Amino acid sequence: MKLYDRQGTPNAARVRIVLAAKGLDEVVEIVQVDLVAAEQKQDWFLAMNPIGKTPVLLLDDGLALSESPAITEYLDNLDGNPVLTGRTPREKGLIHMMQRRVEIMLLDPVDDYFHYGTRGLGEALRPWRMPEWDAAEKKAWGERRGALAVANLPYFDGALRERPFLAGDFFSLADISLWAGLVFLTGAGLPIAPELTALAAWKAKVDDLPAVRNRTGQNF
Amino acid sequence: MKLYDRQGTPNAARVRIVLAAKGLDEVVEIVQVDLVAAEQKQDWFLAMNPIGKTPVLLLDDGLALSESPAITEYLDNLDGNPVLTGRTPREKGLIHMMQRRVEIMLLDPVDDYFHYGTRGLGEALRPWRMPEWDAAEKKAWGERRGALAVANLPYFDGALRERPFLAGDFFSLADISLWAGLVFLTGAGLPIAPELTALAAWKAKVDDLPAVRNRTGQNF
Ligand SMILES: N[C@@H](CCC(=O)N[C@@H](CS)C(=O)NCC(=O)O)C(=O)O
Ligand SMILES: N[C@@H](CCC(=O)N[C@@H](CS)C(=O)NCC(=O)O)C(=O)O
Repeated sequence: MKLYDRQGTPNAARVRIVLAAKGLDEVVEIVQVDLVAAEQKQDWFLAMNPIGKTPVLLLDDGLALSESPAITEYLDNLDGNPVLTGRTPREKGLIHMMQRRVEIMLLDPVDDYFHYGTRGLGEALRPWRMPEWDAAEKKAWGERRGALAVANLPYFDGALRERPFLAGDFFSLADISLWAGLVFLTGAGLPIAPELTALAAWKAKVDDLPAVRNRTGQNF
Repeated sequence: MKLYDRQGTPNAARVRIVLAAKGLDEVVEIVQVDLVAAEQKQDWFLAMNPIGKTPVLLLDDGLALSESPAITEYLDNLDGNPVLTGRTPREKGLIHMMQRRVEIMLLDPVDDYFHYGTRGLGEALRPWRMPEWDAAEKKAWGERRGALAVANLPYFDGALRERPFLAGDFFSLADISLWAGLVFLTGAGLPIAPELTALAAWKAKVDDLPAVRNRTGQNF
């Protein structure tokens, strides 16, 4: 298997944590994509993922899998023991719901903040970033989206006051998404309010999990 | 179980097709939410889904599940025979990827077209629809998003030239999402180009599947 991603990005981190959690680091060859040079928008890459984003997991049989949760479903089920995506119907439903809430309420708005409210990945990607908008419109949109992500954090803090991990008693894809979302948020310069103590305690706990700490290229 | 949804909306259709496919219609009581009156933004509803959207499946043990694919994961696995979300790791990964592509490339942009490029659900929802934007900005954004959905249709047509269903040889969650996306798109007044004949043939075939034809309230 080959993983096309970019070290230091939140979705690369999501899949690399999954690889570490499942003991699959050694099985997968990582190919880094130059996002700043817009390699992900070139034809060879779009043939694997028409959406033009990393990560993509290329299987040995030629199937190119994109979308981090879909890649996670694949990897987590390979050994017949899906510890990250749930074993029972209730676990599966709850994990998928919570991980999707993280995307809608945190990862997606922070991504917009990063790409519109800050310099983002730079000039080469401008044709794919609302070229119709002028600089002020982009900035207003990005800042609005960043503010939304920050405003949504108390929801996750509240959920983590009720249970040790985001979707229950064990570490799952929902936690992986939330962890990546928080690192992306602070990396982009947005604040986590100090009163969100359950979120901070959970973050410290997840920082220390072997799969998070020991994943390939863990400088993010 | 209780399903909170709104007949005639694409996500209600997604879950109702799942219920029919799994023979669970009789087990679930449907409670209709008045979206035009913004019931989905009231506290009682937000307590079930902080994102303020339908559908929500309320389980007998009190767990409120939102996000149609997560609800589908739950329902499809209840009988230990997940025919809609995949049995093997490869099927699971492929189905989740394709259904997510449908959301990103079709359902989400059509939703934006519907809410910004047309009257959408009307006046009561205005506070949740970019109140900072004036009418012209909303219209431009909605139309841009609608054009994107239309421009993405050839991708799905191409995929359906290679295989009978969107994620392989059998009807799955990916097809359910695509079917709902197409009905939403044409219902909102956007066109499907006549040269997309594989897409049209697939649509006619899916229209005729018992789970699609016989689902509760199938007037959409
Ligand atoms: N929905 C995708 C999101 C992927 C994504 O946003 N990837 C980023 C890196 S973290 C990317 O490739 N950005 C480059 C671009 O937007 O051009 C997933 O779940 O993997
Ligand atoms: N991501 C959600 C989308 C749900 C959604 O967009 N629901 C629509 C009805 S199809 C809704 O409740 N709209 C009301 C609103 O936006 O206020 C899912 O997968 O179920």
